Amino acid sequence: MNIPRTLSYISADGREYLAPGADAARPGVLDIVDQTMLPGVVKRLHLSTPDEVFEAIKQLRVRGAPAIGCAAAVGLAVCAMRFTSSSPAEHLANIKKCAAFLDSSRPTAVNLSWALKRCVGAVSAADIAGMNQQLLDEALAITAEDISLCAAIGKAGATLLKSGMGVLTHCNAGALATAGIGTALAPIYTAMEQGIKVKVFSDETRPLLQGARLTAWELGVAGVDVTTICDSMAAQVMREGKVGIVIVGADRVAANGDTANKIGTYQLAVAAKYHNIPFYVALPFSTVDRSIANGSQIPIEQRKGEEIFHCAEAKVYNPAFDVTPRELITGFITERGVLSEI
Amino acid sequence: MNIPRTLSYISADGREYLAPGADAARPGVLDIVDQTMLPGVVKRLHLSTPDEVFEAIKQLRVRGAPAIGCAAAVGLAVCAMRFTSSSPAEHLANIKKCAAFLDSSRPTAVNLSWALKRCVGAVSAADIAGMNQQLLDEALAITAEDISLCAAIGKAGATLLKSGMGVLTHCNAGALATAGIGTALAPIYTAMEQGIKVKVFSDETRPLLQGARLTAWELGVAGVDVTTICDSMAAQVMREGKVGIVIVGADRVAANGDTANKIGTYQLAVAAKYHNIPFYVALPFSTVDRSIANGSQIPIEQRKGEEIFHCAEAKVYNPAFDVTPRELITGFITERGVLSEI
Repeated sequence: MNIPRTLSYISADGREYLAPGADAARPGVLDIVDQTMLPGVVKRLHLSTPDEVFEAIKQLRVRGAPAIGCAAAVGLAVCAMRFTSSSPAEHLANIKKCAAFLDSSRPTAVNLSWALKRCVGAVSAADIAGMNQQLLDEALAITAEDISLCAAIGKAGATLLKSGMGVLTHCNAGALATAGIGTALAPIYTAMEQGIKVKVFSDETRPLLQGARLTAWELGVAGVDVTTICDSMAAQVMREGKVGIVIVGADRVAANGDTANKIGTYQLAVAAKYHNIPFYVALPFSTVDRSIANGSQIPIEQRKGEEIFHCAEAKVYNPAFDVTPRELITGFITERGVLSEI
Repeated sequence: MNIPRTLSYISADGREYLAPGADAARPGVLDIVDQTMLPGVVKRLHLSTPDEVFEAIKQLRVRGAPAIGCAAAVGLAVCAMRFTSSSPAEHLANIKKCAAFLDSSRPTAVNLSWALKRCVGAVSAADIAGMNQQLLDEALAITAEDISLCAAIGKAGATLLKSGMGVLTHCNAGALATAGIGTALAPIYTAMEQGIKVKVFSDETRPLLQGARLTAWELGVAGVDVTTICDSMAAQVMREGKVGIVIVGADRVAANGDTANKIGTYQLAVAAKYHNIPFYVALPFSTVDRSIANGSQIPIEQRKGEEIFHCAEAKVYNPAFDVTPRELITGFITERGVLSEI
């Protein structure tokens, strides 16, 4: 299977990390595929300054909660390599300032804060070179872990799939949203490797069309049978008996299991409930935010009205996420297996 | 209130019918606003041949079940004026042939067949000029009736609205979809004339964005408070307590009340049910097809995949309508009042 990947990092001594086959990757920078240009153009960006990494996350050039965490971690490390700090103390201050800046790029995904906090926490060396090495080691460890987590999620979720089954997904929680083979799409890839072929329906996912642009492209390139539908068609496709399971990703899960994910997820969960179709959330445990008791406390990013087609005579409402309450979720597909409680 | 209209017809002797204020209307042709160019450009088209009328309906330059019926009726009359028939018998054959051709332009809306059948049925004169006059009289009668029906629907539906109430609608069942002030939007206009101001949420309505392009523009021009949302946000807006009622139009209603309307209506009805929000269908009785027992027998138009953004690697599924079962519908707003049975 040829599963497209997004993140790449090559060290100055030429060792390759992360996504294999990133031909255009340059040593010592964070290398990503610009997802705003997919599927038409596969353009790699080479990021090495705080502004570049911030802008790439803010503008969704790299997106998906796990990928944002990995990109911010590697991004922090490559930025730190270029700081002109005059002392280790000043270097640590610069690292913390950069981490806080990157953390402010998007509010909803918990992985962003989680990864940056973990990287800053890993810095203990007495000299600048040592600090930089610790940052890079931690970032690459986070990334390697993400790859393993995706594989484990795929293995757990594949047990829910059967040949010929219809799988409905929303947005992109695939390889393009992680450093590995994805979260919501991982079970599909793992099943396919086991000879189980499913039929995927991919919501186009307004307003930014991550489903139509990214999921359809990613699955299609990997040879998976995928059909794009408008978000408003999901209930109709369910009514026609074409959907056996819904699997979505998550941007942040509260302690009680309430799940923030791309806007439209909640409506999909309501439709699945009405049709008695199992609704699963696929996620690594790093997406769970135990500090938040329930979904009402998850901050929801409000994005600009310009993302939605509208005319001068009308206002626009554009929340980027919604919260699906625990009672609409059948279970969680995690690196520790398929769980009914998170 | 300045409610935009679409259809216009001016007779050769300069008398004006249908929408007032259509400055660019030419005598003896069917005059419509090209709705594929709204809201950016208000361009009037002057149609007088079967191919022109067929293309305008097929390509959704004129759309909305009642407006399609009126346009086809007036269209048939203006086409007939230009036939070069050598005898009344041949003229009647040409009229029937043209009616059958126009009837094939779109399959779902019952008003199209209904209006054309009624016009052909009105032809009884012994001479060509008399036949043409009968066709035109019938077409203008249908149109005048539609204007009255819209007004009556508005009056009935306004009783359901209160100041400050949130009204959610889908697609465009407004003035642009009828010869009058619309079906689903008529209660909003009528309420506004009574001093009752509601807040409208307009689904953008993928794939062709009739909500974002037409409903938002039409309501905005008329001074109604309107907010465009993506189709996938409807359940979230309901969850936030912002919606007191859902009102949609209908393309065809079966004898049991099952309602075919723009794709996404069914999903909206499921979401309304989950949130205990009343869900009303606004329609003239001409939209009811008593020959069809239930929704499973309503033909659903499948449109081209090109209407949906997708990549070469994926298939596309693009049904233009769905059927909302009777049990999800609170009631019907009609010219005979608000009814629980149709």
